[in-house]
Amino acid sequence: MAEDLIEDQEREEQDYRLDGELVETILQAVEDEDAEALKRLLEPLHAADIADLLEQISGNERRGILRLWGREIDGEILTEIDESIREEVLSSLEPEVLAEAVRELDSDDVVDLIEDLEEPQQEAILDILDDRDRIAVEKSLTYPEYSAGRLMQREVVTAPEHWTVGETIDYLRSSEWLPDQFYHVILVDPAHHPLANVTLGRILSAPRDSGLRDIAEEEFRTISVYQEEGDVAYAFNQYHLISCPVVDENDRLVGVITIDDAMSVLDEEHEEDILRLAGVGDESSLSDTVLETLRQRLPWLMVNLLTAILASLVISVFEGTIQKIVALAVLMPIVASMGGNAGTQTLTVAVRALATKSLTDSNVWRVVRRETIVGLLNGLAFALVMGIVAWVWFDGATLGAVIAIAMVINLVVAAVAGILVPLALEKLGADPALASGTFVTTVTDVVGFFAFLGLAGTMLL
Amino acid sequence: MAEDLIEDQEREEQDYRLDGELVETILQAVEDEDAEALKRLLEPLHAADIADLLEQISGNERRGILRLWGREIDGEILTEIDESIREEVLSSLEPEVLAEAVRELDSDDVVDLIEDLEEPQQEAILDILDDRDRIAVEKSLTYPEYSAGRLMQREVVTAPEHWTVGETIDYLRSSEWLPDQFYHVILVDPAHHPLANVTLGRILSAPRDSGLRDIAEEEFRTISVYQEEGDVAYAFNQYHLISCPVVDENDRLVGVITIDDAMSVLDEEHEEDILRLAGVGDESSLSDTVLETLRQRLPWLMVNLLTAILASLVISVFEGTIQKIVALAVLMPIVASMGGNAGTQTLTVAVRALATKSLTDSNVWRVVRRETIVGLLNGLAFALVMGIVAWVWFDGATLGAVIAIAMVINLVVAAVAGILVPLALEKLGADPALASGTFVTTVTDVVGFFAFLGLAGTMLL
Repeated sequence: MAEDLIEDQEREEQDYRLDGELVETILQAVEDEDAEALKRLLEPLHAADIADLLEQISGNERRGILRLWGREIDGEILTEIDESIREEVLSSLEPEVLAEAVRELDSDDVVDLIEDLEEPQQEAILDILDDRDRIAVEKSLTYPEYSAGRLMQREVVTAPEHWTVGETIDYLRSSEWLPDQFYHVILVDPAHHPLANVTLGRILSAPRDSGLRDIAEEEFRTISVYQEEGDVAYAFNQYHLISCPVVDENDRLVGVITIDDAMSVLDEEHEEDILRLAGVGDESSLSDTVLETLRQRLPWLMVNLLTAILASLVISVFEGTIQKIVALAVLMPIVASMGGNAGTQTLTVAVRALATKSLTDSNVWRVVRRETIVGLLNGLAFALVMGIVAWVWFDGATLGAVIAIAMVINLVVAAVAGILVPLALEKLGADPALASGTFVTTVTDVVGFFAFLGLAGTMLL
Repeated sequence: MAEDLIEDQEREEQDYRLDGELVETILQAVEDEDAEALKRLLEPLHAADIADLLEQISGNERRGILRLWGREIDGEILTEIDESIREEVLSSLEPEVLAEAVRELDSDDVVDLIEDLEEPQQEAILDILDDRDRIAVEKSLTYPEYSAGRLMQREVVTAPEHWTVGETIDYLRSSEWLPDQFYHVILVDPAHHPLANVTLGRILSAPRDSGLRDIAEEEFRTISVYQEEGDVAYAFNQYHLISCPVVDENDRLVGVITIDDAMSVLDEEHEEDILRLAGVGDESSLSDTVLETLRQRLPWLMVNLLTAILASLVISVFEGTIQKIVALAVLMPIVASMGGNAGTQTLTVAVRALATKSLTDSNVWRVVRRETIVGLLNGLAFALVMGIVAWVWFDGATLGAVIAIAMVINLVVAAVAGILVPLALEKLGADPALASGTFVTTVTDVVGFFAFLGLAGTMLL
């Protein structure tokens, strides 16, 4: 039965989602305490899928799997496990299982595994490593969090620039140890400064007597060990890098970053942006408990409450006006809502453009002008529509005019705020994704209510 | 001066943004019609940065650069140019420049370049290619848009499974043509079914007499030529693939996808999600004109207007109540706004979880339950805060109770809608990012106003 399911998962077009029935079968095995069946079911799964499974099931079920099957967990699975359950999984493993799993890993994976752990748990894992690995990991941990130094692996394949293809192949064949995956041989000078990359494909296809120098790639980039990891991911995506040497402040080679790590960072950075734009803690995960979720969401809702109260204070200034013309209470949310949405459109485009480094000093004013004109044209369009709707609905031409003017004002303000707020946050060194939304909707609420009710007070009373 | 700027760009930590002064200098050269200087300035830039430059400047400036420097444009630059200006750039090039640029490209890049062009322009470029390349590109174009078939390159490096390392190296050395970048030799059987991947690193480090089979990677995956490109990107990220063979419906090898293409797709998919969540057309670009921008944004604002009017209709039902207690008009946007924000938090987490395939049949009900409990607890917390605020502000304990109850109702509804709406859209085959926001805020507006004003009518009058 289990085999059938696995077969079934490998049909032509896969959707890569964990098969629901397979998960059911696995959880049944856990309930039956059937360690044999569990092993058979989990064996064929990829480490990343096992990690996903552990994240997607409940805490109880997870503890059941770890109890019955924990001895099978290897280094690859550990590196795949999400931070939200990592501590729990690590502390459930028997010391010798953990030791063996950790010893399998490259230095960058060990760093990734332990960098967010508490001091004692971190120490315990460092103690498992042999001296050479431990020193490598400790050295990486001295680099700032989210820097290239944390992301790189220290194991690199280098060759002196004067070597030939033949010498290089002989050297590689005689090497006792090589990284699992590498894509370039890095040419270095005697002081260990990287000079160029030679792709393995060229080494394989060139005659033995070719000089490495002559078949090196024309383009060559290095990354500073202090470079922020988001910029590293950007560089890989922008320049189609596959692996890139990392250098210290003296331009000496200290490690290498490969594209799969850069791709993970790109994915995480996007996740952060999208969650921050929605006012959700950027480490939110589906395996978070109710309390963790509450702790992430409540602060942002509190901020929103304060800005909503601010908007209400604006309305309260016009209580008298509303009392006389209650239609204003009916129509006022429309002005605010349209402003909020238009502002969100502009700010999202701006946040995204900042993240992809396409909003720069050279084009910022042209973009501001474009957004303002678009805001004005949107404003005019919806002023016309909403002016007529209000006129017909409440049989008042002046009321229609009031909402029309308020609409134009608010959509122009929304456009300007939508672009200037993220720009200002960026200039101040803050993440524009983090707080732009709150600022912008506060502005559009306050301006929307003020313009609409203020104009109504002046023109209708 | 130009050299200084370029130097300056290569300092230790790069921010990878186009240097503003450099752009100024370039535009000055365009204004001076100084083709020499322009060439000197653009020469050292990476193709991707030149493409970014062309996107970031105004249409006039772009035409200036193309006129003075268009003969230097090569295939690499063309593939980097954003769709929004691609047609414009292509049609500005002289036929022989275009021909030479296109002939340099791999088949996947040609496909990517022309798939969105109009028929006549597409035909013109196909005619440039020699027969073999043209047939390859035309074959790729028969696969559905956004499929693996469009993404793959048809140039693959294969070896029979019985070959040794030595035979493989000899074959590669004697090959007249190899792809620019390749990371595996794919083992195939006589019927051209792919069997396993051998990394180039292992070929380089194994003795000449080793069988390829013995040094092949244990894990092996293939991708169907009809697989959706978003799923391809997911598989690369999930399983840390570097390159992956693509097979047709008979499991025969038809091409290979490499990680750099998968990374671009991942980036585009994220961009789409983030823009769609904000109600912005998913092809929005900073180089869009005012009219293009308006065409993307206006429809979503129109949808928002309709939902805002729906919410207003709810308010208008309670006009009488508001007339008697004008404080209701002051407080009602708070209930709606809190619901909208809480709903957006939940739906963003849900949309993201669906995109990463971590929200599945196995955990959906646990997540729904968690979100509902979080909604309830948030509701109770803000009911307490807002109940007291309203009580003190308007000196009415019952008014405080009314807003407290309405807050609990709306935040629970927000949570439930926030998770069920994207799930329902996904089940219906729609993109949950596309319309979730509008649905959810409509629900929270309507429920918020209805609960608050309805309760007020019952409890206060």
